[in-house]
Amino acid sequence: MENFVFQNGTKILFGKDEEHQTGIETAAYGKNVLLHFGGGSIKKSGLYDTVVASLKEQDANIVELGGVKPNPSIDLVREGVSLCREHNIDIILAVGGGSVIDSAKAIGIGAYHDGDAWDFFTGDAQVTDCLPIGVVLTIPAAGSETSGGSVITNEEGEYKRAVGHGTMRPAFAILNPVLTYTLPAYQTACGITDMSSHIFERYFTNEKNVDLTDRLCEATLKTIIQQAPLVLEDPENYAARAEIMWAGTIAHNDSLGVGRSEDWASHDIEHEVSGIYDIAHGAGLAIIFPAWMKYVYKHDVNRFAQFANRVWDVEIDLNDLEKTALEGIRKTEEFFSSIGMPVRLSEIDIDEKHFEEMAKKATDRGPLGGFVKLQDEDVKEIYQLAK
Amino acid sequence: MENFVFQNGTKILFGKDEEHQTGIETAAYGKNVLLHFGGGSIKKSGLYDTVVASLKEQDANIVELGGVKPNPSIDLVREGVSLCREHNIDIILAVGGGSVIDSAKAIGIGAYHDGDAWDFFTGDAQVTDCLPIGVVLTIPAAGSETSGGSVITNEEGEYKRAVGHGTMRPAFAILNPVLTYTLPAYQTACGITDMSSHIFERYFTNEKNVDLTDRLCEATLKTIIQQAPLVLEDPENYAARAEIMWAGTIAHNDSLGVGRSEDWASHDIEHEVSGIYDIAHGAGLAIIFPAWMKYVYKHDVNRFAQFANRVWDVEIDLNDLEKTALEGIRKTEEFFSSIGMPVRLSEIDIDEKHFEEMAKKATDRGPLGGFVKLQDEDVKEIYQLAK
Repeated sequence: MENFVFQNGTKILFGKDEEHQTGIETAAYGKNVLLHFGGGSIKKSGLYDTVVASLKEQDANIVELGGVKPNPSIDLVREGVSLCREHNIDIILAVGGGSVIDSAKAIGIGAYHDGDAWDFFTGDAQVTDCLPIGVVLTIPAAGSETSGGSVITNEEGEYKRAVGHGTMRPAFAILNPVLTYTLPAYQTACGITDMSSHIFERYFTNEKNVDLTDRLCEATLKTIIQQAPLVLEDPENYAARAEIMWAGTIAHNDSLGVGRSEDWASHDIEHEVSGIYDIAHGAGLAIIFPAWMKYVYKHDVNRFAQFANRVWDVEIDLNDLEKTALEGIRKTEEFFSSIGMPVRLSEIDIDEKHFEEMAKKATDRGPLGGFVKLQDEDVKEIYQLAK
Repeated sequence: MENFVFQNGTKILFGKDEEHQTGIETAAYGKNVLLHFGGGSIKKSGLYDTVVASLKEQDANIVELGGVKPNPSIDLVREGVSLCREHNIDIILAVGGGSVIDSAKAIGIGAYHDGDAWDFFTGDAQVTDCLPIGVVLTIPAAGSETSGGSVITNEEGEYKRAVGHGTMRPAFAILNPVLTYTLPAYQTACGITDMSSHIFERYFTNEKNVDLTDRLCEATLKTIIQQAPLVLEDPENYAARAEIMWAGTIAHNDSLGVGRSEDWASHDIEHEVSGIYDIAHGAGLAIIFPAWMKYVYKHDVNRFAQFANRVWDVEIDLNDLEKTALEGIRKTEEFFSSIGMPVRLSEIDIDEKHFEEMAKKATDRGPLGGFVKLQDEDVKEIYQLAK
């Protein structure tokens, strides 16, 4: 186990009706609230009204900024930064999924920076502080509700980049599984894929003595695999929605990655796909992850065999560990397919036209991956395997 | 899953040499440090010198209070409270195991209370605030390094009582597995029993839909069971010491208990034993827990069968789930015995003389337990089963 520092102080309020606490939680940080959200879905569902009423009960001054889209854009972040300065914002309240939360975090750091907020994503500026972020989560997927990371897209140049810092972890996050009842099946499945990927990215490590975190990863994955068909079958199954929602947070609160190197190559490889083509991040991951696994499993057949055995209940064939490993990868792909995800680029009409360009962009800040180092040539091979 | 609020912001610094960070971490809270510890072991090991040097590097003003004993006493807490007032203490640094940390927390809340610190433990005063607590952990067991709880003994009356509050969670905790190399086998095993018990207490719940936390509990228990013989066989096995140390924290950082009722009866039942007889808490638990399991398992045979199967790899006998359940209890007892713990009161020369008195004291603030409610009669039966 490697040395590590771990701290995640986000206050979680989990369960039915907890969104009524929004005003009280927000008030602890000040009166001036930037209410940040996406499209019209929170207005249609009534969540917008509940949140605004809760804020007004605490006499909050609300400044609104809606319009966050999937793959949130730096342009809206810039608008948010201006609003924060103009209205002396004390806390940014993100009501939505990972895109809204990521956008809020980027605004939160931008508010402390004299230059352009994109500077953080190019590495030209370093994060030192962030406005407090509150969250009312509507999509269990990205885990951004307790993470210190943010992924933003610069449409000019089609770049998608990540930044992370401890100060960017939300101050509080409200998770009511009932708010996820209206999520369409496809979006639910994208979320399930995203959270599974967050665990894979921590699981495939070169560190040998990480037994507890291995088992915690496996426990979370097994839960996701077991509960996924239940939420898809009955979107109003509270128990299953709750398991999935909590799993999404656990998957990305950093507790599953302590003491080990991680491998975020697949996320980066996918980001180039959803950066160019307007597909959901989760759907992209369902395609890229099995391809990545097929490309790298020989690097540590034992670990892939353990994955197959402990996560997918594949019996270990001691005479053919490679077969065991491959069966785990096959089951991963089969699972994504069973919940309605594409598992090949061709299924979503992406051909090899941009493979070279995407591979170059993905690696333009150096080789990817902590488990296996990947150059642009390797990334291109992975796109080929995902065809 | 029940609604819950979860927040644990303790900063963990884990790994080799991390104790050299003590001064820097402490300095964030102020110059005046109450250095709290137990007997001479930290002086013998050199840890005392390292910590003092690290504090002095940051120009800390150190006030010392050593002498914490197992089952820490309210008398020393009172002394600590006086020192905090006299020296205007900014942070209490606990260097040691659960007893030292618990004592530090009791001092930390006492410093904010005009009356006697014991008032918190009788319920006559409510915790509102606590001085910041820093920890350098030497014994993985109690999980007090990130918990908000403290257990203190009032020798006058032989009472052992617990208090908990969010403000009592340590600000930071330094965990270096190397510092546990010198722990004697018996104390190592007591710690392993204590952390296992913390998981049992959360695992046996009446809440039905808690699949993820069930699996996280099982993952942590499996790790403890697997690593325990390794640390006992080779006390300087860094990897195994690290797994056990981290498991002790995970077991009691409250993440394994979210969304479910817990059952702390066994801890309370044991507290009366170690309150009267001077035995280690862990050894007491190795005796009481199997007896408690035998007394309550019929309340939910399925849960005990799941425990047997997922934690102890007992094959499920669908024609005789009770047999499966009992085999899990037998394996639990066998495990404690295998690591050198007593599993009967008679092994440590305790007879039934005080059973009635202990049972009455354990329940004097009402019946015990969230899984099965226990009156004094039931507690007496459990002492009988533990004879």
